[in-house]
Amino acid sequence: MNGGVLTIYGDSKSGNCWKCQWVAEQMRVPFEWVETDSIGGQTRTEKFLALNPAGQVPTALLPDGRMLAQSNAIMLHLAEGSRLVPSDPYERAKMYEWLFWEQYNHEPSIAVRRAQLQFRGKSEADLDPALLTKGNACLARMELQLQQTPYLVGDALSLADIALVAYTRVAHEGGYDLSAYPAVNAWVARVEGDLGVKSEAA
Amino acid sequence: MNGGVLTIYGDSKSGNCWKCQWVAEQMRVPFEWVETDSIGGQTRTEKFLALNPAGQVPTALLPDGRMLAQSNAIMLHLAEGSRLVPSDPYERAKMYEWLFWEQYNHEPSIAVRRAQLQFRGKSEADLDPALLTKGNACLARMELQLQQTPYLVGDALSLADIALVAYTRVAHEGGYDLSAYPAVNAWVARVEGDLGVKSEAA
Repeated sequence: MNGGVLTIYGDSKSGNCWKCQWVAEQMRVPFEWVETDSIGGQTRTEKFLALNPAGQVPTALLPDGRMLAQSNAIMLHLAEGSRLVPSDPYERAKMYEWLFWEQYNHEPSIAVRRAQLQFRGKSEADLDPALLTKGNACLARMELQLQQTPYLVGDALSLADIALVAYTRVAHEGGYDLSAYPAVNAWVARVEGDLGVKSEAA
Repeated sequence: MNGGVLTIYGDSKSGNCWKCQWVAEQMRVPFEWVETDSIGGQTRTEKFLALNPAGQVPTALLPDGRMLAQSNAIMLHLAEGSRLVPSDPYERAKMYEWLFWEQYNHEPSIAVRRAQLQFRGKSEADLDPALLTKGNACLARMELQLQQTPYLVGDALSLADIALVAYTRVAHEGGYDLSAYPAVNAWVARVEGDLGVKSEAA
């Protein structure tokens, strides 16, 4: 047990962890943050693996002491029934589509380049050039949508925006040039404003 | 418009596409299947990209003509409110956890090795050995859960099982030896039985 309060094991350099922090704040759910350095190996200790066998942050301990992992699953659980989850079934499904696309396409290119360059001591020359191409294709896909709608799913902020803004707002740290994507750039500022998050823009 | 019937653009070699077919069948939702060869390039044509800018299968056209992508999002939409989505909020969140983990960890190791070996003409020697290690870590993580519960989330079939059985049942085609994971092996047969799907076991 953990005293009846949500505990988030998170790495404050990780966009996946920011997502959970932001949604807890939006939902006014009190939480304790346990700083967990994933690159330094704190997610691979015996103690951490007993908590989450996948060895990943964020990992949440819910107020009743039960474990929940995967950033987007934690967000969905905290935000259930709120304005961050569209009530229209089709819009809700499109939100899911963006959430899965984020984990399958966006994070493995945009977040991975940032981690390699900023935290793992790699230089541009060390990296697979295909990663830059894939990340730019993701940004182009978002640009296409955001030229049509102010948020990824229609007219209002949803978990889709929170999931995707996390690593998009620091994409420059992965060597991406957001100025080529004006609608994405404007959306980052819009979502950061909604969340009350300070810009990390270069 | 598409005549008021669900249309699934799918590749019949793809586990991600099987998921949608199985859930439509379970829900008794009539659908049309449009065979779309992703490795042969049919997801990269101008016409297909106009339908789904992400250029991926499965892509669904809902009965009202609107597009929905990402296998797990399509499953969630088709199965909403059914027995395949746990009604308990914590169990539902754990189902989401497995769904995101499937796309982030399991599919990129287990499905990718199968695609390289079976459909892209690669041999074992061409592949990054880390991929085999990562896939086996995924199977070990599932084994740990399935030694405790008959399904990934407790006592009943859910979308978590459907998502994860898709590529696990053909893991041997990616060079994985499922006999090392007896609880996973038994679960594959159990879920295939529930879905009325013929075994692909070697």
